[in-house]
Amino acid sequence: MEIEQLGEFGLIARLQQRIEERRLPQPGAAGVRVPLLVGIGDDAAAWQGANLTEIWTTDTMVEGVHFTRASAWRDVGWKAMVSNQSDAAAMGATPLYALVTLGLPPGTRVEDIDALYDGMLDACAAHGGVIVGGDIVRSPVFFVTIGLTGATPNPLLLRSTARPGDAIAVTGNLGGAEGGLRLVLNKLEFMPDVAEALTTAHVRRTPRVKDGRILAEEGVRCAMDISDGLVDDLGKLCTASGVAAVIRAPDVPVHPALHVAFPQQATEFALMSGEEYELVFTAPPAVMGRVLPLLPAGATVIGHIVSGQPGRVRVEDANGQAIALPRGGWDHFRP
Amino acid sequence: MEIEQLGEFGLIARLQQRIEERRLPQPGAAGVRVPLLVGIGDDAAAWQGANLTEIWTTDTMVEGVHFTRASAWRDVGWKAMVSNQSDAAAMGATPLYALVTLGLPPGTRVEDIDALYDGMLDACAAHGGVIVGGDIVRSPVFFVTIGLTGATPNPLLLRSTARPGDAIAVTGNLGGAEGGLRLVLNKLEFMPDVAEALTTAHVRRTPRVKDGRILAEEGVRCAMDISDGLVDDLGKLCTASGVAAVIRAPDVPVHPALHVAFPQQATEFALMSGEEYELVFTAPPAVMGRVLPLLPAGATVIGHIVSGQPGRVRVEDANGQAIALPRGGWDHFRP
Repeated sequence: MEIEQLGEFGLIARLQQRIEERRLPQPGAAGVRVPLLVGIGDDAAAWQGANLTEIWTTDTMVEGVHFTRASAWRDVGWKAMVSNQSDAAAMGATPLYALVTLGLPPGTRVEDIDALYDGMLDACAAHGGVIVGGDIVRSPVFFVTIGLTGATPNPLLLRSTARPGDAIAVTGNLGGAEGGLRLVLNKLEFMPDVAEALTTAHVRRTPRVKDGRILAEEGVRCAMDISDGLVDDLGKLCTASGVAAVIRAPDVPVHPALHVAFPQQATEFALMSGEEYELVFTAPPAVMGRVLPLLPAGATVIGHIVSGQPGRVRVEDANGQAIALPRGGWDHFRP
Repeated sequence: MEIEQLGEFGLIARLQQRIEERRLPQPGAAGVRVPLLVGIGDDAAAWQGANLTEIWTTDTMVEGVHFTRASAWRDVGWKAMVSNQSDAAAMGATPLYALVTLGLPPGTRVEDIDALYDGMLDACAAHGGVIVGGDIVRSPVFFVTIGLTGATPNPLLLRSTARPGDAIAVTGNLGGAEGGLRLVLNKLEFMPDVAEALTTAHVRRTPRVKDGRILAEEGVRCAMDISDGLVDDLGKLCTASGVAAVIRAPDVPVHPALHVAFPQQATEFALMSGEEYELVFTAPPAVMGRVLPLLPAGATVIGHIVSGQPGRVRVEDANGQAIALPRGGWDHFRP
């Protein structure tokens, strides 16, 4: 059987089962006990330290798959680090230490690697984290893998803790990453301020590290970051929690430049755009009311959690009618 | 400038400087302080937890560079995990949690991935560690990156703590990995027991996790694992410590099958063979005398640390004459 038949998430489920079947009891040795809190299936793994909860995530970008030679290397470095910082944010954790693995083809220019690192260091300076090592290997194709640790004194933000009656909110606004990608790919021309706003939304996303920390401090328990699209990721959150969701499309915050650049598709982009790195989170309405004004990125309530088929997300229009969406979400092995 | 002009270790030094120039103060936030102990340049990064020292390492294997389609997938998985467990061992730490990143070409067989994971899980069962997550991406070339954390209640084994007068010792015996590689590459034929011993030494190395833990418990402070060859790696250890070393070639323990299979090259293999994953360590003679009988892998004193040009390793024959060695060590970017 080839991986395309299983798909990315089918393969992950298969490997997860294989790992569980041969799972050791808690690893360690005399004097070394570090209990696991979160394994496969959330934004990051996590374990319990003596006075902090520690998290650990990893993310990879491959040339020709996640970026092309037309990309600026500094932007590639930024994105590689931010995608990991965003996973830390989605757990409510503060980024701490990063290991960087590079696969480099023969003839790679050192100046390009410098720029790649500058982008990673830009992201560390802005959102936290220190590069403390890694591995550099020869490879026929360029790739960069970053692993990032983080920690928090608070209970973690998990995918599995949404409960019926919770309100659902999202930080910032959505759709700009998709708009910027189309602008770049199709060499579209817009007014300079619109073009710049969309390009920034595509190549210089902001991980919501401060917002994630505040959510955890204020008693929110359920969040994830949007990397595969709002509807798709909210579906994963609902699956992990055994619940369903209803969201109102007119309430989903849309990147303002989309109203100018892609007026017909603005809401669709907001519902489906991946690599947004905003946080989607749920909480009882009283908690939600208290936390929303505290978030630097701002946040908008877009719906609520209901009992129902686990993982199902109903998207309603202004009249409460269900909207049919194209099959969304990113699967690495399905064209 | 292309990376071949700098070489692997020149590129690492350049990036290290770039990182240091833009280094943040200790990362963290209110309530989150995790001081860094070891950054770039040792077998693993390390930081100080509340009651344990935590370490973190990563290692990558790329198809066509580190293994070929002729390799058994289960052996590839074993090696990918063991190279990380060996880095933990070289710090004196117990392996805890692993994140696995796979880059998979279209058409990859699911059964091959199963076998790869079986090899990783074999290594976890034998030497510790639990797979708790990772990332799976599409890639034109197959690669596997493993990150592994570990912890220890003891002071770390470092590369930078060798002192003149220390004895130098190595666990187990050396050269078998090179012998096994040549047997496989050149399809050589030997007596079955010799062939099996060398093949095992090539594809099923043992990371010296227990030995590393005992070294740290018993007061040894300086070690690294042999991944690029004894002489080359001891040179790196000496550079990190600002010292030089003298080793006696006749005292270096040689894999017994080499005397049969490669009698003329046995010592050269033992001095130069990479991916051995034995530990080379230094300690004052009194400490060394106490610790050697305690090691499950056994260990042999092969020389001593001296003042001198940092990083210089003098290899002597039975008469105390210097032996000239071919330039050794593995550099990913130099053919």
